[in-house]
Amino acid sequence: MFAVTILGNNSAIPTPDRHPTSQVITYNEQLMLVDCGEGTQMQLAFYKVKRSKIRHIFISHLHGDHYFGLIGLLNSLSLLGRTDPLSIYGPPELEEIIQMQLRTAATVLRFDMQFHALLPDKTGLLLSERDMEVHYFSTRHRIPCYGFSFSMQRKKRKVIPEQARAYEIPAAYFSRLQDGADYERKDGTIVRNDWVTLPPATARRYVYCADTIYDEDLIPHIQGADLVYHETTYLHNLQQRAADRFHSTSVQAATLADKAGARRLLIGHFSSKYADLQPFLDETLPIFPHTELALEGTTYLV
Amino acid sequence: MFAVTILGNNSAIPTPDRHPTSQVITYNEQLMLVDCGEGTQMQLAFYKVKRSKIRHIFISHLHGDHYFGLIGLLNSLSLLGRTDPLSIYGPPELEEIIQMQLRTAATVLRFDMQFHALLPDKTGLLLSERDMEVHYFSTRHRIPCYGFSFSMQRKKRKVIPEQARAYEIPAAYFSRLQDGADYERKDGTIVRNDWVTLPPATARRYVYCADTIYDEDLIPHIQGADLVYHETTYLHNLQQRAADRFHSTSVQAATLADKAGARRLLIGHFSSKYADLQPFLDETLPIFPHTELALEGTTYLV
Repeated sequence: MFAVTILGNNSAIPTPDRHPTSQVITYNEQLMLVDCGEGTQMQLAFYKVKRSKIRHIFISHLHGDHYFGLIGLLNSLSLLGRTDPLSIYGPPELEEIIQMQLRTAATVLRFDMQFHALLPDKTGLLLSERDMEVHYFSTRHRIPCYGFSFSMQRKKRKVIPEQARAYEIPAAYFSRLQDGADYERKDGTIVRNDWVTLPPATARRYVYCADTIYDEDLIPHIQGADLVYHETTYLHNLQQRAADRFHSTSVQAATLADKAGARRLLIGHFSSKYADLQPFLDETLPIFPHTELALEGTTYLV
Repeated sequence: MFAVTILGNNSAIPTPDRHPTSQVITYNEQLMLVDCGEGTQMQLAFYKVKRSKIRHIFISHLHGDHYFGLIGLLNSLSLLGRTDPLSIYGPPELEEIIQMQLRTAATVLRFDMQFHALLPDKTGLLLSERDMEVHYFSTRHRIPCYGFSFSMQRKKRKVIPEQARAYEIPAAYFSRLQDGADYERKDGTIVRNDWVTLPPATARRYVYCADTIYDEDLIPHIQGADLVYHETTYLHNLQQRAADRFHSTSVQAATLADKAGARRLLIGHFSSKYADLQPFLDETLPIFPHTELALEGTTYLV
């Protein structure tokens, strides 16, 4: 499974039923957290997300609605007995803020926190492991801000069990078949790998565009993505306010997803002024039909 | 009215139905906040507390479950358009933490934040206005920690309307009567103030003991208080763990309230390990019968 679960879909001021930004990415039974607004640890508990399985946390920028919940989550993970290392990716000042708060509380985390500083106007590979690659890129916001591209490339071939059994290949050998090995039978004949396996599934990609003004420089990062998250703080009639505050509108998000040829669009970071979110769909769907609202507690397959 | 409303009654790790420490004190339609754990701004909204009326915030110490919600609340107050000044009282490092987070977000608060640093092993008057005095004192915890004593002294005398009318004193003059003035009638005779008023009600006092190990040095601060909040992180059987972590048990809180001659005791800061709070009452009531659980959303008159 490769999916994203929304923990918070609201912009700066929380409302009674919407929380500041946070998302959980699930892949291979591992979890990654993207942004961590105030109350994220409560949302994780509420939606029964296994906090202990989070190995990487990505913080897009240092506006509070994207990270004020991080220090509380780190504290709780430590109190809950975590010893597995945890990687955090974010602007360099974040490390100083965390360390200062740990120091004044005389807290020593029980786990190893590995901090990776993101630098303005850079782009690149943050993480590469078995099936998952994470790249980052700058977005245009009032302060340095980063988007993240999560690409799940299944590197293993898919064994066709009936075929493998027909050639009398033991199940214990299947993991080698997944890696592309041929099989030598007892009589010395060779079973070629591609007779009994299928190529790995193509990579699937989720792109999180964080907070951003409408910016066509994002297109290369979004291009061809299976699912793109783009903020829509405001509806179309507040386009000027959106620009003034380095945010985007519904129409702008849909336009960008369309121009970039994304497959599906997820919209969120709604201003607290909107109690009803339906107008966001009404404005995006005519431009980009494959749009969904980012709803808290909902999981979207990539 | 002089009352305290509980917003959070839990210790470090929030549970789905209990939040980290925060309390609102209401007096003369003014509000003060005592501690501000993560999610306090959501709790204020949930319980429909008028955030704009908060003028003073007291932070007992820099363990996260007592202040991680402060920066988010400050941000939201500013975004909501507050311009009234706001006073914050807490350990000196708190100011640096707030300023660093504002700076990295390029945020300038729209209101004047007045920071008052509390210093270890000091005690004294923090605030004195019309009816309210706030003192602070050190408690014994793992890091510097402070308790607060809120004393509401009605300085105005109480007019007896029937008496005042009998002497034909116009209602417009009642506010001067409250201040202790005599009244001169048209014929030059004097109506003495104490003929038509009663003395101000005696001071009422709420003492918040923050986080603390069992410490009889607190007795002078608690003595004779109308309502005392004392933490009970653990039940009696975990007395050793409580001491190791500079926390208290149910039995210890009740014992201290009894020794100090407090009138009523409010207990809270329950460890997340306890789903059922009834045992806390079962252990305190035999020692100190006027004990109540600090329950979220509940208001206790002082």
